[in-house]
Amino acid sequence: MAMQLIECVPNFSEGRRQDVIDEIVNCFKGKRGVYLLDHRADEDHNRLVISLVGVPAPIQDALLEAAKVALKHIDMNAHQGGHPRIGAVDVVPFTPIKGISMEECIALAHNFGERYYKETGIPVYFYEDAAKRPERKRLEVIRKGQYEVLKDEAKTNPDRKPDIGEACLHPTAGATVIGARKFLVAFNVNLNTTDINIAKKIANTVRASSGGFCHVKGIGLALEERGITQVSMNLVDYEKNSLYRVLEMIRMEAKRWGVQVIETEVYGMIPVNAILESAAYYLQIADFDPAQVLELQLLDLMGEKAE
Amino acid sequence: MAMQLIECVPNFSEGRRQDVIDEIVNCFKGKRGVYLLDHRADEDHNRLVISLVGVPAPIQDALLEAAKVALKHIDMNAHQGGHPRIGAVDVVPFTPIKGISMEECIALAHNFGERYYKETGIPVYFYEDAAKRPERKRLEVIRKGQYEVLKDEAKTNPDRKPDIGEACLHPTAGATVIGARKFLVAFNVNLNTTDINIAKKIANTVRASSGGFCHVKGIGLALEERGITQVSMNLVDYEKNSLYRVLEMIRMEAKRWGVQVIETEVYGMIPVNAILESAAYYLQIADFDPAQVLELQLLDLMGEKAE
Repeated sequence: MAMQLIECVPNFSEGRRQDVIDEIVNCFKGKRGVYLLDHRADEDHNRLVISLVGVPAPIQDALLEAAKVALKHIDMNAHQGGHPRIGAVDVVPFTPIKGISMEECIALAHNFGERYYKETGIPVYFYEDAAKRPERKRLEVIRKGQYEVLKDEAKTNPDRKPDIGEACLHPTAGATVIGARKFLVAFNVNLNTTDINIAKKIANTVRASSGGFCHVKGIGLALEERGITQVSMNLVDYEKNSLYRVLEMIRMEAKRWGVQVIETEVYGMIPVNAILESAAYYLQIADFDPAQVLELQLLDLMGEKAE
Repeated sequence: MAMQLIECVPNFSEGRRQDVIDEIVNCFKGKRGVYLLDHRADEDHNRLVISLVGVPAPIQDALLEAAKVALKHIDMNAHQGGHPRIGAVDVVPFTPIKGISMEECIALAHNFGERYYKETGIPVYFYEDAAKRPERKRLEVIRKGQYEVLKDEAKTNPDRKPDIGEACLHPTAGATVIGARKFLVAFNVNLNTTDINIAKKIANTVRASSGGFCHVKGIGLALEERGITQVSMNLVDYEKNSLYRVLEMIRMEAKRWGVQVIETEVYGMIPVNAILESAAYYLQIADFDPAQVLELQLLDLMGEKAE
């Protein structure tokens, strides 16, 4: 059987004390099946964002180890920072990458949440696809008022009680939001016009909030230094709303205003399938199998050897 | 430093005796840094083709081990089969995949050839990009007349003397052709016409032999059962003649005859960059870096851990 791979981007409420940052990051190093892609500590946000890919079981073990470090060192009553947060370990999203379905990632989030509460005593809210209440799909609903407000409301308002744990937050570590979500692709399309209204109108036609594609978020922006405008998007489900389909729609709408796409930008990481699907469309490749890609077959073989 | 990866597809002159086939194939199993993608033994050809990817040093060690098995069991004087051949280990091509240049692959082929002769006593011819004489770029020139003719001509005709070794072949193992070449991509384009002349005319416009792209080989074929025709191609340098450029040329030529491309086919393996480059063209992605592809970054990280 091919290796199962997930992505996980845990966020910790510590972006200033280097020793604490190092101790947390070290939990993800030198572990079989855990691959640390990136970590960024932001002093203003006072927040640490870690990007991991790997096999579900060892990723979860490492997360628990890191959570215990955070629990030891971070007191939410003393924490200040520019980014909304409710806990020392603020958010833990699991994303399916390979050989694992969204349903399995949701089950994984739920099981991990139980174990997490048992081993750390930190209560858990579930969000996105793992939400147990529909309104909790949205992180901002769970985090409303942040730690300072939630620590009281969790006790008094049943709508704000954690999904796992008693009706109160942990006295120092607050609570943790655990969930499952698809991989988010940041995709920007630049237009050869300075007229920001055109970029905004086009953003309107493609984004879900104004009736476009169901899994696209987007805004129109001016890139003033370059004298151009941009449709800046997040594709929150690249399988349902693929890059080529979104781009062709923008090209079509741009024509109406006598405007052209001058370039696009994929910002940050992208799963290979998001690119392969668009390549297969434009190249009209019938029955293309990602296993035909040499590097992907090699990844499977390496995964088998590493087990 | 990122891991160096090569592909190697050694061909052995044994496709019938299962015990010998197994003993050769086993040399490529369970070795750190050596990944066996595929192996196919053909009884009619009496030939074994093995596809490997991996790190240069362990691949070379495993090749030598396998060559010694072939040397022990295969006698070219008794060998019969439908595929042209001159030796027990017939061809060993090295192909750069990742973190290694063609120049480095050529040097690797030359060094390996020296060591190979020293350890096995089998003389070596260099071909393709590693050829030491221009006419030996082409495998068919080296293999002309096959083992039966070459074993005499190597002694008498200076033009047929091996690049490494005395002016005679090994008495049982013949000689081995070692080289470096780019990855060959098999790319077929299907047309909605039954007129094979159109497919042939289009093949003529794109292939090197009739003045088209320098690194494209191609023919026009009828797929009679399906009632369509095909431009069947080998892209022998997908970096210089990329898929999208070849396809767009075919689409343009097809228009002239009122014909359309109905689908394309990538046959067998393809390196990810061949796909990424075409995707970046059609999606107009500026400054796309393959390191943005999650699975490729993971491959690097796994490679580092495996070292």
